[in-house]
Amino acid sequence: MTPQHFTPVALDKSYRLMNHGPTVLVSAQHGGTTNVMAAAWACVLDYGQTPKVTVVLDKPTRTRELVERSGYFALQLPTKAMATLTFGVGTDSAKDVPDKLAKYGVKTFTASGSDVPLVEGSVGWLACRLVPESHNQQTYDLFIGEVIGAWADERVFSDGRWHFDDAPDELRTIHHVAGGQFLVTGGTVQG
Amino acid sequence: MTPQHFTPVALDKSYRLMNHGPTVLVSAQHGGTTNVMAAAWACVLDYGQTPKVTVVLDKPTRTRELVERSGYFALQLPTKAMATLTFGVGTDSAKDVPDKLAKYGVKTFTASGSDVPLVEGSVGWLACRLVPESHNQQTYDLFIGEVIGAWADERVFSDGRWHFDDAPDELRTIHHVAGGQFLVTGGTVQG
Repeated sequence: MTPQHFTPVALDKSYRLMNHGPTVLVSAQHGGTTNVMAAAWACVLDYGQTPKVTVVLDKPTRTRELVERSGYFALQLPTKAMATLTFGVGTDSAKDVPDKLAKYGVKTFTASGSDVPLVEGSVGWLACRLVPESHNQQTYDLFIGEVIGAWADERVFSDGRWHFDDAPDELRTIHHVAGGQFLVTGGTVQG
Repeated sequence: MTPQHFTPVALDKSYRLMNHGPTVLVSAQHGGTTNVMAAAWACVLDYGQTPKVTVVLDKPTRTRELVERSGYFALQLPTKAMATLTFGVGTDSAKDVPDKLAKYGVKTFTASGSDVPLVEGSVGWLACRLVPESHNQQTYDLFIGEVIGAWADERVFSDGRWHFDDAPDELRTIHHVAGGQFLVTGGTVQG
């Protein structure tokens, strides 16, 4: 069952979910194992009808294994309310803390027609198919995904735009600096 | 001559200038031609003693030509006060508007020992050497740079941390959404 605030975003607008450079949660599953980690190094790579993203996944991580084995992953945008969860799943490895998702209260769900785990409470979700690029993955830990589904919490993102100023402060996205310190997405300026 | 607020940042802390995902200005020069463009799709790729970044540079851009010919570029962080400049140099091409730097009031300088142009008024600068990866450049417009010098405006970044809350609001960094609308970097939350 999908959560209450989970509204489809057109693929050609999905880049706008990540254009402002927030820290993301990376999720994947394979063979009945689900994991979630945090990544500050995630970025839009392309837009249009075949939007793409990049994300850096370090070699020792369980999530990376699941991405490589399944060929799928999701990037999602945690909120200010999820700062502790985000730092937690980004610091603990499932290899050392097998119950890390329970420890940080991470709940996942799936969208219709997909078995990629998505994290509850996020405000944007991008389901991705891995575009295999062995050299990038081995040399730079750099993974490329084609976005095949996108959704947002319509309280903060609708008509292809964020409108954080009209919603509860706790729903703002976050940008990791270091050591669990995040900068919160602020107001708007028109250039 | 370097501007007043231009303080070296240790290479192993330089990733923190971009960890929060701001929109950047990309600058390069070759054969006496300098250009500057904006890029929302720029990201940290690695940290440590040989930090790296990625940036997406579209094929028709003059700046991309200068990067490919010179093998060097800089990423720098424009401020809220520079939103119009940033949108302007990101929209106009020097191929169509030869005086676009003058049009938007862009002034550049160089750091000692380098001829990579840096943009005045920014609050963070990363001078980079291109790491040639032809497949990425041709297929994805994706460029990798090794950071060889880093500086920040010490009013907002010192001791490896941002502290926007203690400085004038106009010095905050910005994150492009679309069409010249930027989200401004906000306050802090500890996870």
